[in-house]
Amino acid sequence: MRYRPLWAERIAAGRAIIPKIRQIPIDTHPENTAFLLRHGDGYSAEQFQALRKIRISGGGCEILASLALVDDPDLIGAGEIGLGEQAFQRLGLPEGTEVEIAQARPPASLEFVRRKIDGEALGDGEIAAIIRDVAAHRYSHMEIAAWLVACAGFMTTQETLAMTRAMVDVGNRLHWDSPLVVDKHCIGGIPGNRTSMIVVPIVAAHGLVCPKTSSRAITSPSGTADTMEVLATVDLPEDRLTAIVAQENGVVAWGGRIGLSPADDVLIAVERPLRLDTMEQMVASIISKKVAAGSTHLVLDIPVGPTAKVRSQSEAVRLRKLFEYVARHMGLTVKVVFTDGSQPVGRGVGPVLEARDVMAVLRNEPDAPEDLRDHAVMLAGHVLDFDPGIAGGKGYARALELLASGAALAAMERIIAAQGPRQRPLVAGPMRHEVKATESGRISAIDCERIARIARHAGAPMDKPAGIDLLIKSGAVVRAGDVLYRIHSSTRTGLDFARDLAGENPGYTIS
Amino acid sequence: MRYRPLWAERIAAGRAIIPKIRQIPIDTHPENTAFLLRHGDGYSAEQFQALRKIRISGGGCEILASLALVDDPDLIGAGEIGLGEQAFQRLGLPEGTEVEIAQARPPASLEFVRRKIDGEALGDGEIAAIIRDVAAHRYSHMEIAAWLVACAGFMTTQETLAMTRAMVDVGNRLHWDSPLVVDKHCIGGIPGNRTSMIVVPIVAAHGLVCPKTSSRAITSPSGTADTMEVLATVDLPEDRLTAIVAQENGVVAWGGRIGLSPADDVLIAVERPLRLDTMEQMVASIISKKVAAGSTHLVLDIPVGPTAKVRSQSEAVRLRKLFEYVARHMGLTVKVVFTDGSQPVGRGVGPVLEARDVMAVLRNEPDAPEDLRDHAVMLAGHVLDFDPGIAGGKGYARALELLASGAALAAMERIIAAQGPRQRPLVAGPMRHEVKATESGRISAIDCERIARIARHAGAPMDKPAGIDLLIKSGAVVRAGDVLYRIHSSTRTGLDFARDLAGENPGYTIS
Repeated sequence: MRYRPLWAERIAAGRAIIPKIRQIPIDTHPENTAFLLRHGDGYSAEQFQALRKIRISGGGCEILASLALVDDPDLIGAGEIGLGEQAFQRLGLPEGTEVEIAQARPPASLEFVRRKIDGEALGDGEIAAIIRDVAAHRYSHMEIAAWLVACAGFMTTQETLAMTRAMVDVGNRLHWDSPLVVDKHCIGGIPGNRTSMIVVPIVAAHGLVCPKTSSRAITSPSGTADTMEVLATVDLPEDRLTAIVAQENGVVAWGGRIGLSPADDVLIAVERPLRLDTMEQMVASIISKKVAAGSTHLVLDIPVGPTAKVRSQSEAVRLRKLFEYVARHMGLTVKVVFTDGSQPVGRGVGPVLEARDVMAVLRNEPDAPEDLRDHAVMLAGHVLDFDPGIAGGKGYARALELLASGAALAAMERIIAAQGPRQRPLVAGPMRHEVKATESGRISAIDCERIARIARHAGAPMDKPAGIDLLIKSGAVVRAGDVLYRIHSSTRTGLDFARDLAGENPGYTIS
Repeated sequence: MRYRPLWAERIAAGRAIIPKIRQIPIDTHPENTAFLLRHGDGYSAEQFQALRKIRISGGGCEILASLALVDDPDLIGAGEIGLGEQAFQRLGLPEGTEVEIAQARPPASLEFVRRKIDGEALGDGEIAAIIRDVAAHRYSHMEIAAWLVACAGFMTTQETLAMTRAMVDVGNRLHWDSPLVVDKHCIGGIPGNRTSMIVVPIVAAHGLVCPKTSSRAITSPSGTADTMEVLATVDLPEDRLTAIVAQENGVVAWGGRIGLSPADDVLIAVERPLRLDTMEQMVASIISKKVAAGSTHLVLDIPVGPTAKVRSQSEAVRLRKLFEYVARHMGLTVKVVFTDGSQPVGRGVGPVLEARDVMAVLRNEPDAPEDLRDHAVMLAGHVLDFDPGIAGGKGYARALELLASGAALAAMERIIAAQGPRQRPLVAGPMRHEVKATESGRISAIDCERIARIARHAGAPMDKPAGIDLLIKSGAVVRAGDVLYRIHSSTRTGLDFARDLAGENPGYTIS
């Protein structure tokens, strides 16, 4: 009870008060929330507004949290501070621990954000300070949005490099015993473009070290981690990931657990809902993750097409140069490849359907999607060309050979076994709807954004069996009534919603 | 229980589910929060992230809210949706009402924000759509920050005008029976500059209609509403405000209750913590509030000084022209006055001390602060010059006469009586600390920002008796040991903290 009469005032004055932690069974992900009894001692809610962000510290740990006021002493008592699930876990102290609370001072680096908003270019040290505070969760989403939009206004090449370096420095780094550590990355935006799961086993079968860490989808119908998870465990602790690479040369894991470039994850949580997608953030994000993962050589796939992320050749060249500049200064060798981003790759869109396509290619099945196979073999060839033991330009033939011989399939099977195979195989969603051509003609375009959106509404990637199976691709001639694609879902609701969306506009242009 | 197995999926798919409202005694101001039982049905917190913002609708009302997941069925049961205090009040439906919940679609106007981020100038209709969504609380703080920072990059005069008009259109408007409705406004930044409480009674005594609505301080040690509240009730419903103006010509009320330019309040809640202070937002904010309040003629005080908001003459002129352009197109006559913003005005800083100075001026006390009196009379003179019945330039003499005769004091006493006088008068905080000159010489500068910060740390404006009493002003000659100012607080903690801050740097330059 010692703090009761004056706690709000004391927090406001930056003075610590000392309550005991109580865990509150409320999940306010991704924000930290702290709960205090209001006491009704005459302060209006408006006056509390300025105090909402508080600093909680104890035992050498510290977090910032939003303040929620509680009017029910059963939920939180006097002398207690309630911590929601995120805040409790991030602080990491047991219930009943006494902690200090005080008004949070805004991070000092916000001053640099203001200068950026005013149109200044920032120095390396200033950008490093911002990224350190971002990675330590000291910025609110509002403050991160301010930083990102200010950067979207303009960002110099030097600033982009400084940001990339700072993002590597604040996180974990993987180290490998090999002088050559290869990786392959696609900037995304093309549904079904699941080449990594073919490139990694080809490259691993050849004997190069390829520790592939991937993200889950947040705005697309599936990320590599989501699709690989149809076949095997992808949430691997660092020591297991290292052991699998030592044994099999390759791995296809979810990167979220390992803490590579953690500032990137914090920034992405704001970029995604705002759909901010600038070249500078993309370059810093990708290069920082690869350098932190210990890669030395990277093949980077940039699909170019009317509904892809990059829509013109000149934009693609600008992006390539920025990637090359930043990679060179970070000590990463990068080979940029422009690919056809005019339509989805393969047939399946969504985790289960994409995994089916990948395995069909690896198994050399006669009806495996040719575009996915050709695309993956071409990229694998570029990766193999990094091997000094391969004669210039012979990587493609070697990749083809490793796929055709079954060596890539065998490598994939060993990788799946090492990561931990899924016990009960998943099949495409049982609820189905066929979308048919409404007129006859030639398919002149397929809208990547639209197909992705329909697949997401069917339930992908949360509902792994949900997605779209594309039966007809660009260039084909159809008659009215022919099936263009099949929507799959595990639920009636998902199917209905995807069907409604496809009914408005199926994403196919027939001319 | 009908929604239990699939609710998360159904929300994700945009399908409504129908739970009953339960009020949750948690105040998450200013955000709306809704609470749902997690159910532990296999969804990971990461997967819920995308669903956090939900739309709750029923009985023709609708709100958006952040989603918090509850793991304790005593707090929220199956078939229920918990609403925190803000969400419950904004939705305005009784407990137990069945409501529909679904995933919130991002407001359509966010597309225009993205185009602004990309560097485009927006049209009137696009800006109006953004402001409508902002006023309806459809934007998160993150999204508002993106809009404000994009505008800070560049904003055309036409965009500023469109924003001002849109801000007026989404709110309440006051209408008065007089063809001449005057007001006076200062852009702020100068501690102690409490001229409105002198200008309003002078102008009202003359017979002009002057319905002054003011804000409370959020980053300064006192707003006009905070200082007036030392003397009288300022939280007046619209009908009482109207009645007081009809009877007394003037009022000094808190504007927060009346819903004038409500989008401005939402934007300010993000501008303040980010310390975004662009000319365009300032002009739109001030002009929209004045037009909504029914003013026809405005005197605008722009203090210029090295620690003021406007720091150079050229900046002041640019701001004046923007004010004049927007005001003219909104049908508001504006007279811009540049004033000396080189140091605080008057002696008191903080609600009680400022109210003391204001009353000393109105009572013509011999030791009333001259600079506050001169400043207020000059501004009142410009307001009176709007009266067609006054010969050009004679406003100043008339203002002086109304003050000297006691007519202004009598008007203030009637206004206080009409608003409702404070029953127990407040005096300056009993805990005191004197800040002394550490060397001899002439006071060459007083830092407005520093003085404001020290006064806030003493407790102002929440602690009304807290603040600073300035005994020495710029130009005076002091000897080491002379008292420069006195810090007041109601609490030992506040006093200690303000004293520490003043110890680091008292804000006075002696040369």
